[in-house]
Amino acid sequence: MSEEPRSPTPVDLGAGRLEAFSDAVMAVIITILALELRPPGGSSVAALKDALPDLLIYVLSFVFIAIYWNNHHHLLRATTRISGGVMWANMFLLFWLSLIPVVTEWLHNADVSREPIDHFYGDRIPVASFGLVALAAAFAYALLVRAIIRANGRDSLVGVAISSDIKGLISLVLYLLGVVFAFATWVRPAYTLYAAVAVMWLVPDRRFTRASNV
Amino acid sequence: MSEEPRSPTPVDLGAGRLEAFSDAVMAVIITILALELRPPGGSSVAALKDALPDLLIYVLSFVFIAIYWNNHHHLLRATTRISGGVMWANMFLLFWLSLIPVVTEWLHNADVSREPIDHFYGDRIPVASFGLVALAAAFAYALLVRAIIRANGRDSLVGVAISSDIKGLISLVLYLLGVVFAFATWVRPAYTLYAAVAVMWLVPDRRFTRASNV
Amino acid sequence: MSEEPRSPTPVDLGAGRLEAFSDAVMAVIITILALELRPPGGSSVAALKDALPDLLIYVLSFVFIAIYWNNHHHLLRATTRISGGVMWANMFLLFWLSLIPVVTEWLHNADVSREPIDHFYGDRIPVASFGLVALAAAFAYALLVRAIIRANGRDSLVGVAISSDIKGLISLVLYLLGVVFAFATWVRPAYTLYAAVAVMWLVPDRRFTRASNV
Amino acid sequence: MSEEPRSPTPVDLGAGRLEAFSDAVMAVIITILALELRPPGGSSVAALKDALPDLLIYVLSFVFIAIYWNNHHHLLRATTRISGGVMWANMFLLFWLSLIPVVTEWLHNADVSREPIDHFYGDRIPVASFGLVALAAAFAYALLVRAIIRANGRDSLVGVAISSDIKGLISLVLYLLGVVFAFATWVRPAYTLYAAVAVMWLVPDRRFTRASNV
Repeated sequence: MSEEPRSPTPVDLGAGRLEAFSDAVMAVIITILALELRPPGGSSVAALKDALPDLLIYVLSFVFIAIYWNNHHHLLRATTRISGGVMWANMFLLFWLSLIPVVTEWLHNADVSREPIDHFYGDRIPVASFGLVALAAAFAYALLVRAIIRANGRDSLVGVAISSDIKGLISLVLYLLGVVFAFATWVRPAYTLYAAVAVMWLVPDRRFTRASNV
Repeated sequence: MSEEPRSPTPVDLGAGRLEAFSDAVMAVIITILALELRPPGGSSVAALKDALPDLLIYVLSFVFIAIYWNNHHHLLRATTRISGGVMWANMFLLFWLSLIPVVTEWLHNADVSREPIDHFYGDRIPVASFGLVALAAAFAYALLVRAIIRANGRDSLVGVAISSDIKGLISLVLYLLGVVFAFATWVRPAYTLYAAVAVMWLVPDRRFTRASNV
Repeated sequence: MSEEPRSPTPVDLGAGRLEAFSDAVMAVIITILALELRPPGGSSVAALKDALPDLLIYVLSFVFIAIYWNNHHHLLRATTRISGGVMWANMFLLFWLSLIPVVTEWLHNADVSREPIDHFYGDRIPVASFGLVALAAAFAYALLVRAIIRANGRDSLVGVAISSDIKGLISLVLYLLGVVFAFATWVRPAYTLYAAVAVMWLVPDRRFTRASNV
Repeated sequence: MSEEPRSPTPVDLGAGRLEAFSDAVMAVIITILALELRPPGGSSVAALKDALPDLLIYVLSFVFIAIYWNNHHHLLRATTRISGGVMWANMFLLFWLSLIPVVTEWLHNADVSREPIDHFYGDRIPVASFGLVALAAAFAYALLVRAIIRANGRDSLVGVAISSDIKGLISLVLYLLGVVFAFATWVRPAYTLYAAVAVMWLVPDRRFTRASNV
């Protein structure tokens, strides 16, 4: 990782604690999502069927947080230096991720099943809000990437690995479009765009895998 | 652990963070289970007696998560390389474990005490659902074992330790039988099979203990 | 710590994960206790005064968990080898600690302020139950100490440090007396004994401090 | 960090566990704050607007905890020795931070929007209580700094970095003034003072950044 394996140790420890704190926050976010899951109202198959939309929303939010954890992990594995800017960018990202449970709960209350096929007026605000939080989280992640490259230098492992953050840019554009669609009452296309970003990120980041063999 | 003790360090760090995140999720799952425990309704011995079934269900779910933590610990102690596949298999396992509290709460609502001795129709769905979640978790654990062996090679410490995952296979079969029994309204045999898997895993895994002296 | 500073690394890592998992469980237990604290019912000084007993109970339970964390930390700092027995003894301790929030809540419902000075019948069961959980936790801690000494040998750092676990024995006796007192409806002496154990443990363990300079 | 990079390892590990436990507590505190956030009552823009004060209070408390985490991180990065006094000072700090969610909820119930411009009698107690908890946390942090310097010596990295803790002293004075103002029913100036402390700490501590290049 470096010619002097001993000297970067204190800096690695710093990254370690940043990772540990981020892991703790993300683990508890996942568990708040699980806490919001209520058992079905009865013991019949019909009661289980009624609980399925909630389960689906839980799966989506779980995957959303899991993707951030996964990419965060790959990003920080390639990082050797932490600066004050990196710490605050990371805290900014955690702030937006911590809003995911409350927005998820709002979405859930919005009762997607009542939605007419194309134009739907009533619930556009919750769907747009989810998109805004996701957009802000993606923006915070992009800030974090930039702060890390600034702290480690363009020639560092992480700097070379992320020569261009195309996936991050695409995410920002898709979330922005999703918010616009939701405001324009096109709720289903908005959902489709949010899901598209998730699918795009589910593929692990080849750049780091190639660089650090993780 | 290897001829070059220095070079695997970054990979060990990766396993460390995987362990830390898994620990955080499992610790919070245990605590959600504890949160669901309510104090007895009064201050009498009778009130304490009424709370005993809840306490028993809590003990069972605590042991269930504790077993996964214990085996997960032994498995990752023998692991030196982490791949993207390992990370997603681990996330898949955590997803199913995170459903344990809500299924436990459903079981609890199902009021086992009302159960007739052999054939019981009303609550077969919650009992079968618990078995399905346990089956999915066991399947996810088997996937994780396979992904780790693929990443570390058949000749690695972990590859040699798990030449055949017999206990994992037995678990899958017993859980599957339990689900079938529950659907067939044989609720007590289903519970017995679930408990049998727990008892089987309570014995620490000799394979790793022998191999790595943990 | 050993003549070959490189070889014990995997075992230290094991202790590290045991510590991390225990920390996570204890941190969340503290926070469940904090969650149970409700804001005062109004904005007056009188409302704040009404909330004081709850705050006091919170302080006591916080100190109880903090003492276990502190001693657990000193104990594992002196430990170099982890066995399967150590892992299960630790899990057994965490199980009893995880019952502290629900017993605390029960105590709180028992409304101590209504208590007559010497003989009090109604609430002896919650007070005795708190004592039983505390007794079981102290017993589990003693088991953990014994399992660690067995894994590390009588001549190890931890074996020498705890040549005799007098404080642990005193705790067991005081808690047992407290439970007996509570059952005999002497609630106040029972509380006094519980508090005495806490005060005794608040003093950090000189044995380890001397041995490992922590 | 030292001429003998091997020997301080056990002490570093101690600091590591202190950090890990503190991180876990602070992460869960942040998440309790997030749990208290409820989704808006309806799906309209008006419902979102009604939820804005709650969101603002959440942002303030999140920033409050984030500042403590950030400074705690900088402080412990420069620390090489942990003593029993450091551990209890840290626990004392965590105790006061753990009261932030319940005081935040009380503030929120106090309904700041009903407040007359200058003199406001009804809600002075919650606002003063928030100030008292913040004052106690700042005092506990000052104790922690002192305990760490005592354990590491005036000539150590951390001793040199904090030759004088001016910011800590200013915080104490501002919080004290805020509490006095709140009791004197000057609620808005009290809020302004609390916010001023937050803004002052948002700037990362140059002393450590210069000393340890974090």
